[in-house]
Amino acid sequence: MIANTSPPPYYAVIFTSLKNDPSEGYAAMAEKMDALAKVQPGYLGVESARAEIGITVSYWKDLDSIRKWKEHSEHLLAQQLGINEWYSAYCVRICLVEREYHF
Amino acid sequence: MIANTSPPPYYAVIFTSLKNDPSEGYAAMAEKMDALAKVQPGYLGVESARAEIGITVSYWKDLDSIRKWKEHSEHLLAQQLGINEWYSAYCVRICLVEREYHF
Repeated sequence: MIANTSPPPYYAVIFTSLKNDPSEGYAAMAEKMDALAKVQPGYLGVESARAEIGITVSYWKDLDSIRKWKEHSEHLLAQQLGINEWYSAYCVRICLVEREYHF
Repeated sequence: MIANTSPPPYYAVIFTSLKNDPSEGYAAMAEKMDALAKVQPGYLGVESARAEIGITVSYWKDLDSIRKWKEHSEHLLAQQLGINEWYSAYCVRICLVEREYHF
């Protein structure tokens, strides 16, 4: 779903990835990380879609929340498995959301 | 593909949408806007995926490039058709990309 974020400013992490195929264990880990992210301090929402590439945008209150989630022990393990097993390439972009508008 | 952007800072426009179904003329217009965006001044790249929701992230040199693209006459027409015909909801977020890293 479209994330129902509060008025800017807040932060977005744009995670764009190319996945290896097949990718054993990926779906279960993605679901687990999704659930774990949701209960982190400063989490505001997430949007995700995958076609040729995958795009996941997660929204956060501030840079400190992003840093803590990046360094969360279970998330570190998932990141390492991602590099070793699941992704052939990815890009992470840390962004300050300055404005938003809806329809 | 994953956009090959230059080192930050630069800007990202995160466009998240829910599409009506069916959506006559949408694919052709999306392709046309994609081609037109690519030749605008300040355009740096685009990433796009659609599953339950669509996420398109376009990258730009600065806010002025984004404003000019938003106000481009053909793009204005596409935006109006999007509101009238194709989208049931969307959100646009204008973001300053502060950091990026790759694998």
